Amino acid sequence: MEKDKNYHMDIEKFRKHGKQVIDWLADYYENIEDYPVLSQVSPNEIRDSLPDHPPLEGETFDDILKDVSNIIVKGITHWQSPNFFAYFPANTSGPSILGELLSAGFGVQGMLWSTSPACTELETHVMNWLAEALQLPKKFFSNSFGGGVIEDSASSAALCALLAARERQVNNCSSDYHDKLSRCTVYISNQTHSSLKKACIIAGIGDDNIRYIPVNKNFSMQSDELLSKIRQDRLNKFIPTFVCGTVGTTSSLAIDPILKIGNICKTENVWFHIDAAMAGSAAICPEYRYLLNGIELADSFSFNPHKWLFTNFDCNCFYVANKNELIKALSVNPEYLKNKYSDSKDVIDYRDWQIPLGRRFRALKLWFVIRYYGLNGLRYHVKKHIEITGQLEELIKNDSEYELISPVSLNLICFRHKKDDDFNKILLDKLNKSGKIFMSHTILNDKYYLRLCIGQTNTKLSHVKKAWDLITRTAKRLTGS
Amino acid sequence: MEKDKNYHMDIEKFRKHGKQVIDWLADYYENIEDYPVLSQVSPNEIRDSLPDHPPLEGETFDDILKDVSNIIVKGITHWQSPNFFAYFPANTSGPSILGELLSAGFGVQGMLWSTSPACTELETHVMNWLAEALQLPKKFFSNSFGGGVIEDSASSAALCALLAARERQVNNCSSDYHDKLSRCTVYISNQTHSSLKKACIIAGIGDDNIRYIPVNKNFSMQSDELLSKIRQDRLNKFIPTFVCGTVGTTSSLAIDPILKIGNICKTENVWFHIDAAMAGSAAICPEYRYLLNGIELADSFSFNPHKWLFTNFDCNCFYVANKNELIKALSVNPEYLKNKYSDSKDVIDYRDWQIPLGRRFRALKLWFVIRYYGLNGLRYHVKKHIEITGQLEELIKNDSEYELISPVSLNLICFRHKKDDDFNKILLDKLNKSGKIFMSHTILNDKYYLRLCIGQTNTKLSHVKKAWDLITRTAKRLTGS
Repeated sequence: MEKDKNYHMDIEKFRKHGKQVIDWLADYYENIEDYPVLSQVSPNEIRDSLPDHPPLEGETFDDILKDVSNIIVKGITHWQSPNFFAYFPANTSGPSILGELLSAGFGVQGMLWSTSPACTELETHVMNWLAEALQLPKKFFSNSFGGGVIEDSASSAALCALLAARERQVNNCSSDYHDKLSRCTVYISNQTHSSLKKACIIAGIGDDNIRYIPVNKNFSMQSDELLSKIRQDRLNKFIPTFVCGTVGTTSSLAIDPILKIGNICKTENVWFHIDAAMAGSAAICPEYRYLLNGIELADSFSFNPHKWLFTNFDCNCFYVANKNELIKALSVNPEYLKNKYSDSKDVIDYRDWQIPLGRRFRALKLWFVIRYYGLNGLRYHVKKHIEITGQLEELIKNDSEYELISPVSLNLICFRHKKDDDFNKILLDKLNKSGKIFMSHTILNDKYYLRLCIGQTNTKLSHVKKAWDLITRTAKRLTGS
Repeated sequence: MEKDKNYHMDIEKFRKHGKQVIDWLADYYENIEDYPVLSQVSPNEIRDSLPDHPPLEGETFDDILKDVSNIIVKGITHWQSPNFFAYFPANTSGPSILGELLSAGFGVQGMLWSTSPACTELETHVMNWLAEALQLPKKFFSNSFGGGVIEDSASSAALCALLAARERQVNNCSSDYHDKLSRCTVYISNQTHSSLKKACIIAGIGDDNIRYIPVNKNFSMQSDELLSKIRQDRLNKFIPTFVCGTVGTTSSLAIDPILKIGNICKTENVWFHIDAAMAGSAAICPEYRYLLNGIELADSFSFNPHKWLFTNFDCNCFYVANKNELIKALSVNPEYLKNKYSDSKDVIDYRDWQIPLGRRFRALKLWFVIRYYGLNGLRYHVKKHIEITGQLEELIKNDSEYELISPVSLNLICFRHKKDDDFNKILLDKLNKSGKIFMSHTILNDKYYLRLCIGQTNTKLSHVKKAWDLITRTAKRLTGS
């Protein structure tokens, strides 16, 4: 930032306004529980408060910040509120926010090692740190055949894994490419995240070549059905290409039988991807490491520190067992990006591990979080969330008006009032409109369930007790009892 | 951030450390010219300075920030230095950094309108503002059939455009999907950005179905060759699907004949995407709006405020003329994301406009930038960069030892010492190793050229003059003259 008056924010102003924003955010967090968790605005309400045309002349930073307070905040659904229980959390923390700030300030591109070596090397390093924390098999560490990379999301990680799997079966330059592509099949369950279906569509696998394997009563994939479907497909000249097993499905946090699926994939030579988007974070605690049993059989694995490890979105950690398979699927190498380091193969160029070319310095925030909390701090909070969930489970079990999906998995509870679906829909709507909590819903066994997920950075038992109290009181008012 | 001592950074500490980071960044910008622009570290040098294992116990923020100074900075290539002339810029600014900070602090997800209405509505709004600034045709505004969305990069925008184009020709659920997919062809030039080839591979178009249309002596696509190739393909039962025209190629900032290509695509019913990654920003100046002449014939268009509009990466602005075509290609709708607003169709759910599901509040930084600078401020700086480039062009033209690609386009100069390729390679290496400037290279007409791009936020004429002085002095030293 230069010091002329030619429209730029000069350095002294940056100091001043930067500190204003820090204070603004601190105040925001101090008062976050005063805002309705779910934004209560109607469609277009925010846009109607904004001028139709962009300003010709620059405005003051104070005016802009005032509009954040007066216009933007009311259109925010407060994902960082301790009373946010919807979907999966997207939790963050002080160290993470400040890591993101530094990354924005550096403004470097990490597409190649040489475009900012620290961006690549810190990423490789913290990915190894997390591999160690998760007790991942050796093959996922960067000093083996595999390695880790930060993607924006589990959706993108799954797409990259699928593309590598596709390339393993069908080289995109071969003359029989489309014939083979038309026979590539993918295996997921109806509980698998929707991004896997989207990945199949993107990658030209096509809707018809997705096989939905049935689940058991715990909503986890039936591995015998998987095996028989793969064999049947092979008999029919299909090319079984990719299986996604989930550790912690979105609907109910169900766990697919990773070890069994892994063995099938090994025998059948099918790429095995594990999507552990939220629940993977729990595996940093030795007592929950069992969630990943069988991961030694996987070709790729991803989880999101931006869900449950206090690191702001976007931060998905994606590991592959054989980096060459990934690079083969994603590398294109134009002249203007050639450089001696890439040629030497001594370095990692992460552009070849992802869909886009450009990339931010995302490792900084993850490094800040791991160092500021230490593994013990991270484990403490993850375990605390699971413990609180157990306490809520007891409360629900002891209330005869409610039923829940059992066993409760980690930090997600799916429950419903024993009255009908419509009642539960009205109840949820009422609760979310109160602004005091925000939950979402799902459908399991053809019934409508409320989903309450406990993973927000600052959620304590007191918040959950208050939430339960609100739920039961609201239901009572609705039933007139 | 709660106030307990359980590992979290409490609010008062956040205030303190946040202000430390702001001051750290301000100091960094104050001294940025003291660092070697291109990082001088060797492979693994950064990693070797980091502990092998993650810490069990948390560390102090001061210790972490100290390591940023002592370890990370030397591995940074300083993209924000005014002496950075390589690749394309990834420029940023004070208002943008602070917008990104606020976005990290809010930590909201914008996948659905309902998950944070302000995130969606502000995005729609600033995309319209920019459409107005660029004088885009009505169809790209959100109140028409089309609209704009922020993607992470021009690569992702191109992929989304290609997927919509593919879906227009071949429905992914149809029984003849793979037969048709195998006949879909894509038309680019050998100057088109490598991400287009990558998109074709990702989308299952396959390498063989990419047609490289020859370019003329100015490196722009020959539209007559395009037309004849499309017609020939159609005769051969191919399905011409997608053409990418570039406004400002990566190698030389060449401009494809948009109007001619557009007319061909219209007649031939082929999706026409315009990639104006860097040069598109120039079109906010009325005197450079001509760059986009013919855009009224395009189906989609993208440019990167994160390159040349003082907004930090990632911020690609992607416009489509018919949003339904995009949504049809990218929408999957699982139960757990259903909500009455999405059902009503009154709102935009941007998850259906992009590859991943989750999304950050990227509109904030763009809104901050447009408001803080005003259109006049943005225009002032873009024009200044082009003016400075013209001044450098004069200097090079007046030096008989150098030749350049003419006409020089906007803010990029490709030039070479008249000695051979090897000399230019050595010269570039020497210059970049000096740490005083950073340039990159390309190959044009089979010759090695140095690329000097002027778009960094704080680059002034004085920096460019100093760079030219360094280049000529270094070359003289190398030739011994």
